Amino acid sequence: MKAVVKTKRGFGAELMMIDIPSIRDDEVLIKVKATSICGTDVHIYTWDDWAKNRVNPPYAFGHEFAGEVVEVGAAVSGIHIGDHVSAETHIVCGRCPQCMTGQSHICQETQIIGVDTQGCFAEYVALPAQNVWINPEDMPAAMASIQEPMGNAVHTVLSGEIAGKTIAVIGCGPIGIMAVGVAKASGASKIIALDVNEYRLGLAKGMGANAIINSAKEDVLESIKHLTEGMGVDVVCEMSGHPDAINQGFKMATNGGRVSILSLPVKPVSIDITNDIVFKGLTVQGITGRQMFKTWQQVSRLLKSGLVDASKVITHQFPLEEFEKGFDLMIKGQCGKVILLP
Amino acid sequence: MKAVVKTKRGFGAELMMIDIPSIRDDEVLIKVKATSICGTDVHIYTWDDWAKNRVNPPYAFGHEFAGEVVEVGAAVSGIHIGDHVSAETHIVCGRCPQCMTGQSHICQETQIIGVDTQGCFAEYVALPAQNVWINPEDMPAAMASIQEPMGNAVHTVLSGEIAGKTIAVIGCGPIGIMAVGVAKASGASKIIALDVNEYRLGLAKGMGANAIINSAKEDVLESIKHLTEGMGVDVVCEMSGHPDAINQGFKMATNGGRVSILSLPVKPVSIDITNDIVFKGLTVQGITGRQMFKTWQQVSRLLKSGLVDASKVITHQFPLEEFEKGFDLMIKGQCGKVILLP
Amino acid sequence: MKAVVKTKRGFGAELMMIDIPSIRDDEVLIKVKATSICGTDVHIYTWDDWAKNRVNPPYAFGHEFAGEVVEVGAAVSGIHIGDHVSAETHIVCGRCPQCMTGQSHICQETQIIGVDTQGCFAEYVALPAQNVWINPEDMPAAMASIQEPMGNAVHTVLSGEIAGKTIAVIGCGPIGIMAVGVAKASGASKIIALDVNEYRLGLAKGMGANAIINSAKEDVLESIKHLTEGMGVDVVCEMSGHPDAINQGFKMATNGGRVSILSLPVKPVSIDITNDIVFKGLTVQGITGRQMFKTWQQVSRLLKSGLVDASKVITHQFPLEEFEKGFDLMIKGQCGKVILLP
Amino acid sequence: MKAVVKTKRGFGAELMMIDIPSIRDDEVLIKVKATSICGTDVHIYTWDDWAKNRVNPPYAFGHEFAGEVVEVGAAVSGIHIGDHVSAETHIVCGRCPQCMTGQSHICQETQIIGVDTQGCFAEYVALPAQNVWINPEDMPAAMASIQEPMGNAVHTVLSGEIAGKTIAVIGCGPIGIMAVGVAKASGASKIIALDVNEYRLGLAKGMGANAIINSAKEDVLESIKHLTEGMGVDVVCEMSGHPDAINQGFKMATNGGRVSILSLPVKPVSIDITNDIVFKGLTVQGITGRQMFKTWQQVSRLLKSGLVDASKVITHQFPLEEFEKGFDLMIKGQCGKVILLP
Repeated sequence: MKAVVKTKRGFGAELMMIDIPSIRDDEVLIKVKATSICGTDVHIYTWDDWAKNRVNPPYAFGHEFAGEVVEVGAAVSGIHIGDHVSAETHIVCGRCPQCMTGQSHICQETQIIGVDTQGCFAEYVALPAQNVWINPEDMPAAMASIQEPMGNAVHTVLSGEIAGKTIAVIGCGPIGIMAVGVAKASGASKIIALDVNEYRLGLAKGMGANAIINSAKEDVLESIKHLTEGMGVDVVCEMSGHPDAINQGFKMATNGGRVSILSLPVKPVSIDITNDIVFKGLTVQGITGRQMFKTWQQVSRLLKSGLVDASKVITHQFPLEEFEKGFDLMIKGQCGKVILLP
Repeated sequence: MKAVVKTKRGFGAELMMIDIPSIRDDEVLIKVKATSICGTDVHIYTWDDWAKNRVNPPYAFGHEFAGEVVEVGAAVSGIHIGDHVSAETHIVCGRCPQCMTGQSHICQETQIIGVDTQGCFAEYVALPAQNVWINPEDMPAAMASIQEPMGNAVHTVLSGEIAGKTIAVIGCGPIGIMAVGVAKASGASKIIALDVNEYRLGLAKGMGANAIINSAKEDVLESIKHLTEGMGVDVVCEMSGHPDAINQGFKMATNGGRVSILSLPVKPVSIDITNDIVFKGLTVQGITGRQMFKTWQQVSRLLKSGLVDASKVITHQFPLEEFEKGFDLMIKGQCGKVILLP
Repeated sequence: MKAVVKTKRGFGAELMMIDIPSIRDDEVLIKVKATSICGTDVHIYTWDDWAKNRVNPPYAFGHEFAGEVVEVGAAVSGIHIGDHVSAETHIVCGRCPQCMTGQSHICQETQIIGVDTQGCFAEYVALPAQNVWINPEDMPAAMASIQEPMGNAVHTVLSGEIAGKTIAVIGCGPIGIMAVGVAKASGASKIIALDVNEYRLGLAKGMGANAIINSAKEDVLESIKHLTEGMGVDVVCEMSGHPDAINQGFKMATNGGRVSILSLPVKPVSIDITNDIVFKGLTVQGITGRQMFKTWQQVSRLLKSGLVDASKVITHQFPLEEFEKGFDLMIKGQCGKVILLP
Repeated sequence: MKAVVKTKRGFGAELMMIDIPSIRDDEVLIKVKATSICGTDVHIYTWDDWAKNRVNPPYAFGHEFAGEVVEVGAAVSGIHIGDHVSAETHIVCGRCPQCMTGQSHICQETQIIGVDTQGCFAEYVALPAQNVWINPEDMPAAMASIQEPMGNAVHTVLSGEIAGKTIAVIGCGPIGIMAVGVAKASGASKIIALDVNEYRLGLAKGMGANAIINSAKEDVLESIKHLTEGMGVDVVCEMSGHPDAINQGFKMATNGGRVSILSLPVKPVSIDITNDIVFKGLTVQGITGRQMFKTWQQVSRLLKSGLVDASKVITHQFPLEEFEKGFDLMIKGQCGKVILLP
């Protein structure tokens, strides 16, 4: 089968033919209909420090996808050949205290599809049955493919009350844009999107942001103050990873507010805990992955109902063979989600 | 000043001239710009059993309104002449355990404006400053007037998660209709409205219900099953007060669902606790009043942002003098909210 | 192996020799060290209406136990021969919406060990690996055996705040007694236990109840009023199933209180929803099973730390052969938990 | 009357005679029976940077106390001469969004008794009626006096689940010691107390800590790992303010854990957000003040029920005249709570 393979330790990847994977008794084989490029894939592609320390070429990477089940392991129940599916990309142990108490998204032994295992930038992918999420038959494959990153957005935005709240989304990459859409659909009364990239701010506006702030051009805290009648925002979704933005996030939150951090700053960040967290009575949440599978249910329903219009997020689609075009756009930040079609 | 006065123990009310009320040090005097008719006012007007046991004519009734502050008591701070305001209608004691622990909406000594005190179907109303909610200057008076009943809808719908949930609203009087609008604005993925009155079901549809069920004509539980792929709904907002509807509400809820009851059934209701509450692991909530003033903040923001379009709820407006037309419509159930303009 | 078998449709059971069960790939075989008698077992033993409609003799019943793993299926990981274990008694489907969203304790396809499958009143029991809970090595088998019913108590008591709250436990069977102990350990500031059985009230007192009320002899609501300075209790744990007691439970709750119902009344109960739920702003919870496996973690830790002294709950221990003595005591209500030792 | 007055900008304070304060209509005058020394008072006494920037001598300071009402303002209801009382020390505005939505403990206009206003190191203190908390008649004055700082401990510990959880209390000053006691009373299954002061670790042990760690002598993270079977703790209460300890706090928390910070580090702290917050899915809470008055109800009940034994926290009592002895002990850290008796 065709697959995009990280062949060596360095920039780039190659399209090549590899074997269709075989499955274990507790796995299913899925024919990939659409796959999308994640920021993590860009790390692997560009071979940054994180990638150097984590992944072991050669292997086919990629983890966001939608497809159709073509083979089912002997021990699998509840999933059938022909089912339209996507997959949770965290493979969890099932027996650590976190897994045993309904928090498998923070399993201590998490492996990630396409990072620690063979991925889905390919015609077929083999996966543990317990990772499979069944999609509605009529959900387009491209839309179904972006449920995984939209799950990050949903997990971040809906980890507290949103209806009637003011919210700032810092960082308008694809997940930030989707966070804007999720907040809009969920009743946020004012959504302020922040980035330094005008293209992305435009996408955020299109997804329903009430106001946008170009952090490179405006006095962020003054603008927030003006937009919130001096109060600050109730909820901050931090998706930029930039230390200055993170500190602005704490400062723009109103007393009693929530700061939910999905981003992964590359270095420790200096924080004024006393004034920006304690005296304000803030709640700060680290957000990782998606709640299994509560977040998937939320994502599926927000998409199926049309409350979030995913078509605005998907800005580009290419055949799998043209993966390099997709990666170029991602590196430049001139796109929302990029879909590859095997 | 002009006022609609419940003059005697029996059906009806009279428009008459009464003195403008004087205020205490901790009160404000408000010129009423718009007032709306509540179901409670209809109980008083038609003089049902509840009214006979609760209210003491003669007095001006009415409790939902918007107006402008014209006089401020000596001990009042933070409210000024000229402020556009509405008011929380529960006057609370401030010292019972509920009031002392942030639950004043269930104060043990609650008095209700227009029920236990002089009301707002009049040109002026005097109120404790602590009950006053300041409106945005640009909010139309009719819209501002219905914030109190919309608060009941918000309190009911938002007493748990809504985004990505399926919800049934049983009983589509004005509060039910607003509940539909609030659920829609807050990300409910499927909203099913139930009533026996086609006019009201039409209003519910207009507010965003995805499906309507005429309980008098359909097999309610079969229809719900069909609409939810056999699962039942995640959230039930019970606003009908009818014992059969209440039992249907419990039965249509999915395992782990929430049933929030705002209605006031006139007699005890027989409930299959074992099968309909315990084995299902349901959460049942009694909802009364509005959280002070969290609910008011939510209402104000949902209206001001345009996320809930209140104009669809306000079906009729009359001069105060024509109050009888409004009450006739309310009695017949052929209206949403009816506004009276002093 | 020896087993207590429900041999026929009628009162009683018989000790007999049956085959040691064989296991599937996803199961483990456990040598039973201690097993305890549940109220459900008494229903089966006495052959009441519920039992007639639910169970199919002949089969070995019983579901509460502790034992040691002696064989592990080929597909099982994380459980080893020699592990000391107990088991969650709900066998769940893993794919219904409840199972998929972290609520498998209310799985729509739940089967119960010893009710729908072969049970543990025997020398060996075979169980799905996913139901197994690993016990600390040093936890005595009798104590480990009662974790399942203690889980019901923990699930009921800890389904909301307890520290600094006043609580009433209605019905002091073994689970009620344990609920008293759990509430005590968790910081309830006043615990009131109610029953009509003086023996059980004595056990409740011994577990830490601050006050006891014999519902047959006292005016329950007056006593509660007196004990709570007129306020009522913050939390009601209903474990009696009696309609009068349930109504008293609603009436004794303070405004804003929580009523958590674990009991299974045999008929519908008439409830004054308006005055006892809505105006009070109560939260009513149906409680079933144990959260998998959050509740088990709580139980295990409360026992291991000594915060709950289970030895006070275990009033009798017999060899498995003398199971009839145990059932007699359970029928008479003259016991806490009764342990059988195979 | 006698009062301990901060007479000038510099170290120390003086006992002197000042006028008994007069009260406004919404205030009460209280005869002080016992007052206790807070860390904040030590800042003022020793005249550190914070004090230099915040307080304006001369004035009588102190804010923790218990006393008896001797005069009631004309506009006050619900409080009577002879009532035994303490007081919430945050004077709040009542009209900011936080105050209006049940979060007055993080009021944007907070003033603090004894910091921004005349305090209670005196024979009499005048206070707004809305700040007064009525004590049980039989609660000893010294115990009633420490409810305010115990409120900080309760607010920190009980801002999430505790029963069956493992908890670390970092920093065993008086509030840390009380946090240990509150956690013990509330069902924490393992309580680990950390400090560098052996005297204070001894007090923590006496209040119920299951294990103590001298952070200056042990490898903190190794010790925690050993004590928690490699899992880390579920809850961290940070009360030290030391940057290393704060970072250890994040690192010792288990995935999905809670880190509640009451301390006020004097400088920004560098935090590894990616590894210590995001990937772990932690919740970090800034804790300030006490929830009005939910926290006070919890404190009062935990003390009155005897579940927390405050006598172990109160290590020293002096006549008001000997205030310098108390401050010396506080500066040296050789005490729990120090009571002054006017």
